[in-house]
Amino acid sequence: MRATAKAHTNIALIKYWGKRNEELILPTNSSLSVTLDGFYTRTTVHFKNELQKDVFTLNDKVIKDIAYERVTNYLELFRNYANKQGLYAEVNSINKVPTAAGFASSASGFAALAAATAQALKLDLSEQELSKFTRQGSGSACRSIYGGFVEWQKGQANDGSDSYAIQIAPQDHWDIRVAAVVLTAKEKDVSSRVGMKRTVDTSVFYDGWLDSLPADLEAIKEGIVAKDFEKVGSIAEANCLKMHATTLGAVPPFTYWQDTTMTVMQTVQSLRKSGFPAYFTIDAGPNVKVLYLPKDEQEVLKKLRQTDGVTDVIVSKVGEGISYV
Amino acid sequence: MRATAKAHTNIALIKYWGKRNEELILPTNSSLSVTLDGFYTRTTVHFKNELQKDVFTLNDKVIKDIAYERVTNYLELFRNYANKQGLYAEVNSINKVPTAAGFASSASGFAALAAATAQALKLDLSEQELSKFTRQGSGSACRSIYGGFVEWQKGQANDGSDSYAIQIAPQDHWDIRVAAVVLTAKEKDVSSRVGMKRTVDTSVFYDGWLDSLPADLEAIKEGIVAKDFEKVGSIAEANCLKMHATTLGAVPPFTYWQDTTMTVMQTVQSLRKSGFPAYFTIDAGPNVKVLYLPKDEQEVLKKLRQTDGVTDVIVSKVGEGISYV
Repeated sequence: MRATAKAHTNIALIKYWGKRNEELILPTNSSLSVTLDGFYTRTTVHFKNELQKDVFTLNDKVIKDIAYERVTNYLELFRNYANKQGLYAEVNSINKVPTAAGFASSASGFAALAAATAQALKLDLSEQELSKFTRQGSGSACRSIYGGFVEWQKGQANDGSDSYAIQIAPQDHWDIRVAAVVLTAKEKDVSSRVGMKRTVDTSVFYDGWLDSLPADLEAIKEGIVAKDFEKVGSIAEANCLKMHATTLGAVPPFTYWQDTTMTVMQTVQSLRKSGFPAYFTIDAGPNVKVLYLPKDEQEVLKKLRQTDGVTDVIVSKVGEGISYV
Repeated sequence: MRATAKAHTNIALIKYWGKRNEELILPTNSSLSVTLDGFYTRTTVHFKNELQKDVFTLNDKVIKDIAYERVTNYLELFRNYANKQGLYAEVNSINKVPTAAGFASSASGFAALAAATAQALKLDLSEQELSKFTRQGSGSACRSIYGGFVEWQKGQANDGSDSYAIQIAPQDHWDIRVAAVVLTAKEKDVSSRVGMKRTVDTSVFYDGWLDSLPADLEAIKEGIVAKDFEKVGSIAEANCLKMHATTLGAVPPFTYWQDTTMTVMQTVQSLRKSGFPAYFTIDAGPNVKVLYLPKDEQEVLKKLRQTDGVTDVIVSKVGEGISYV
């Protein structure tokens, strides 16, 4: 009744931005990400008959706040599925995702938790089934089941049975790099969850966003298969700009960008003008991730590190999917 | 056959962003502006039988480039209307619009030129007719015919006969201020004209933009009549954000913002958090204009001048319409 799993975070190139069902975490659109080898969560789940409730430690600290509630509620899904009501677990997580770089630790966190829990309970789930469980912990986590390039198919069904991730290309298909650019920290005014919901509910641009996605998704998959970096990068950057544009049409409008976000965007565009193909993408926060090719690493990192407001740059390669230890 | 007219520039609170007819300069949407007393063009037009072609001087320099072509082509409109083909003019303009602050001099420029030309030719045009002539020189110039708060009604007719400006409230209706924030100058990548056209032709957000405008326009007119500063400011700021969002959905995407643009936006938002109502608006360029009330002038200007990247702040009151000297 004990298992350990490791999962990597991922960065979306086609953004997940809106839920059609809040409880089951069903998205309004399909998304696509690359799994990152630099950043992961390793989680051990140990079910024990003598426990009266779940115990959750994160980086060796016992957690009792809202994060505990999210974990214990999530374990209920598995207990109900396995008919093991009343069987509690010790959950120990080590999180190697730098939150300062604007990565949500929920993606690797829920992927590792789901995998370790299913293994500990000997559920023998397919990766597809595991992806569906993971999705219900945190939407983007369902993509972290796989390594390489991964699509989360939004699905049509009301029960979420066809909303899961599939692998587009494995880790060793293509060696691209992602630099996570850490900026002088400021507090976020609007959380991802709140911003996503406000955008879906009020943005005058939300329909335009949704309408444009199927073409982006088809084109970027072609680009990944063909290893066409300019195609993949420019679609990812344009998709990110569209996602952030939707927040400017919300009521009231808001943005996740700060001036330093824009400074890094300008650095990336000037790298391209100098002949170094590099493209940015930005999640629901101020930090910027930069895609580039290994041959350009030295120049790209130098320019990013010289940019005003940049405190750190952390490099990642394409990562693998769930592994068990 | 000689007349002098003075016209002030204006800043749009509901943006003009897209043409439905490029030649007649007919807009896809109605817009609304405030005329600014600080910035103007004074133009003398003198028709002389002995001239073989038009002569244009701007700030005492003889102009022979594309700006000359625009002026002489524009005068043809009047010559054709007045049946004075072959009668040329000396046009002398003094332009007091600081282009560094990102004001297009075309608004006050074409308004003054149209008024002086019509007067020199003794055409006895109504302000409505004059506004239609002015529109054909530069779209937003048609709003500079009037002082105070001005709407450019987009109209429906294919010949432009119902596309002209009307005054919503006169200059002395409401004393609000506009600070033009001058930023460290960088070159614009995409001109207003090109950006507008690319957005209309390709942006996935253009329909959302258009759909949202009638409500913005109605609400801001109510706010102006009621002198509700928070209402007017927040609608203007949201409308500007929506206009700029449309460029992020164009193919390829682009933005007029620079990092310093964002820094000033953040200053304005932090002024509001400190209890000083101030709102920004931004045209097709990086510079920011800030709306505020006279009682808050000291604090607003202090904070703007302390902002990184700001090289100058130029204050304007609400201005008057066309005048003749």
